[in-house]
Amino acid sequence: MAFVIAEQGAAAVLFAMLVVFGAAKLLAEVFERLNQPGIVGEIVAGVLIGPSVLHWVAPGETIDTLGELGVIFLLFSVGLEVKSSELVKIGGTATLVAILGVAAPFLLGWGLSALWGYPPVEAIFVGAAMVATSVGITARVLAAKGLLHATASRIILAAAVIDDILGLLVLAIVSGLARGKFEPIELAMTALVAIGFTILVATWGTRTMGRVMARLDANLQAGETQFNLALVLLFGLSLLAIYAGVAAIIGAFLAGMALAESVTERVHHLTQGVTEMLVPFFLAGIGLRLDLSVFAQPATFAFAALLLVAAVLSKLVGCAAGAYRLGRADMFRIGAGMIPRGEVGMVVAQLGLAMGVIQKPVYAIVVFMAVATTLIAPPLLKIAYRSVEPKDAREQYDLG
Amino acid sequence: MAFVIAEQGAAAVLFAMLVVFGAAKLLAEVFERLNQPGIVGEIVAGVLIGPSVLHWVAPGETIDTLGELGVIFLLFSVGLEVKSSELVKIGGTATLVAILGVAAPFLLGWGLSALWGYPPVEAIFVGAAMVATSVGITARVLAAKGLLHATASRIILAAAVIDDILGLLVLAIVSGLARGKFEPIELAMTALVAIGFTILVATWGTRTMGRVMARLDANLQAGETQFNLALVLLFGLSLLAIYAGVAAIIGAFLAGMALAESVTERVHHLTQGVTEMLVPFFLAGIGLRLDLSVFAQPATFAFAALLLVAAVLSKLVGCAAGAYRLGRADMFRIGAGMIPRGEVGMVVAQLGLAMGVIQKPVYAIVVFMAVATTLIAPPLLKIAYRSVEPKDAREQYDLG
Repeated sequence: MAFVIAEQGAAAVLFAMLVVFGAAKLLAEVFERLNQPGIVGEIVAGVLIGPSVLHWVAPGETIDTLGELGVIFLLFSVGLEVKSSELVKIGGTATLVAILGVAAPFLLGWGLSALWGYPPVEAIFVGAAMVATSVGITARVLAAKGLLHATASRIILAAAVIDDILGLLVLAIVSGLARGKFEPIELAMTALVAIGFTILVATWGTRTMGRVMARLDANLQAGETQFNLALVLLFGLSLLAIYAGVAAIIGAFLAGMALAESVTERVHHLTQGVTEMLVPFFLAGIGLRLDLSVFAQPATFAFAALLLVAAVLSKLVGCAAGAYRLGRADMFRIGAGMIPRGEVGMVVAQLGLAMGVIQKPVYAIVVFMAVATTLIAPPLLKIAYRSVEPKDAREQYDLG
Repeated sequence: MAFVIAEQGAAAVLFAMLVVFGAAKLLAEVFERLNQPGIVGEIVAGVLIGPSVLHWVAPGETIDTLGELGVIFLLFSVGLEVKSSELVKIGGTATLVAILGVAAPFLLGWGLSALWGYPPVEAIFVGAAMVATSVGITARVLAAKGLLHATASRIILAAAVIDDILGLLVLAIVSGLARGKFEPIELAMTALVAIGFTILVATWGTRTMGRVMARLDANLQAGETQFNLALVLLFGLSLLAIYAGVAAIIGAFLAGMALAESVTERVHHLTQGVTEMLVPFFLAGIGLRLDLSVFAQPATFAFAALLLVAAVLSKLVGCAAGAYRLGRADMFRIGAGMIPRGEVGMVVAQLGLAMGVIQKPVYAIVVFMAVATTLIAPPLLKIAYRSVEPKDAREQYDLG
């Protein structure tokens, strides 16, 4: 029992959830019917209800938190489908994909911005913001279509982890430059911690969790114990990942991978429930941040379009080149899968804005690039994976 | 890829989630091993990590939002197990249980506070804060033990809905008195909207959703469509419930009930995942709000203890009396199930505080009463339901 007055907070949260979730799922349905990827519909829903068009919902703490949790659960559930032993096998190719996929967009973004006349530090920051792939979008497409088992998919996931560490180093160097100091020892430490964390969890994680889960079944009494322990590992590793300098989603992915071989089907089902509920807030949340008003100026619009083309081509060509040994079909798949920048590009842009080295118009351009790449990738992936047979897709679409 | 600096928000959220979730599940496990209800462990975990003892986590927007969503999903998943036709059958008994269960604590709380020497308006507000049952705690215990099918459980759920409407009316009258005006027409309107909303959803809901879900299977393409539509209904009805003046959880329960006969097992599983993840934030969140420091004064402590006894006995005896036709075993079950006040009592106390009619010490006493009743109910329920055979409990404890 409660008055509206007393539940105003709850009403605001529920209103935002209803509008964001409802709009995302409605447009997903519309896009699917038009034979377009539903995920694009969910991002477009965010653009429509957001500050650019309808003004129904503004990005706020609740939507941000739910979206952040959404992408964490998304990468966790993807990790649950991946065995770490399989990632090690394709480690060489993935490393090459990540290195070329980081170098190409960084140099192209930096060069184009400098040629366009932006100040040197601002130009180098644009390059840094174009570096890191946000693997959430691609992971969603591949998981929903039952395509995670393909070799190209495994390479995308492994490359995204390495890409994230490289992106951390690029950002560390670039923000050192912006502050006018370069500290090689600190940089080496940053690299060491990030790489050490990743390798440690990827190698020891699976074995340790296998042992823990085996002991659990016999001993613990509280209901849904495996799921609860999985969530504690998820929250813990996501947090540790941030402390180690990489993104929370890398920790989430590693947590999933560590559990992939030891948890029951039940844990998969329960995780899917949480993921289904939260992911629309991540996707629509990306769309919500798009502010189209800065593009009233033709010059800004032209540079944004140019940068978008550079962002797409540099990842597509760079990452494909890294996978040259696998043939054209897989090269295209990997290139397309690495295109989305999403929330990761925005984080770099926000940092630059906070440091005062990039200006509002460039910030808006980077956000536009980050959102637009998430819209371009799903249709490309659909084409690239046309000839791959889905696996477990039945479960994803199970209507009973 | 991201720096700690850029993910500070995410780190704070993940830290709070890790501590709250981890502590709740750890203490649940400890309590289960000591043969105590796990739910009490989760509330105690909130007390321990909160401002009263360890100061690790303070109640904040994130935990509040997750907790609010947790109790909404909890009542939704309970609603999914209840057919509205079954509730109608026991409507007469439930109404009597609700009426006596509202009158007894209101009069006793008011009378005791007045006798103890509190001002008339403050005393009447204490009575109002003792009125409404927070059915979340009881629902969690009964659902986890597979006891929702028992007659007593059905009566508790139906009585909680009616109790909520009565509580709304009591609060409307009391806050009218506090403002020094009494508006019978507005009061009648409030009652009409709340009752109308409840009856409408309870009667038309099931039929309508049955038809909608039947059409869905044949038509819709996007994955997990039933679950998505269920969530839209859940968010929508929870929001409408607030607008109609009742608690969001009543809308959530009605949404679940409307879908009980039409959704697949898959929707149940996915909902359980979300519920399992969020409920610890609701339970530990209750414990977090307990501030024990005000009880340094013996007089305050004595009155708090007296009020707690009154809160427990008035519901236990009042609600049991309403179910006199069912015999002693069911009377005890129903009385025990209606004891918890939880977040609902706190909302009334907050309103009184905001209106300036109740003072800080009385606020703390009411919050203490609200939290303590949630700790007392689960062990009583365990005893009361000892002779009832659980149903579907296997699923709740499925470790694969």
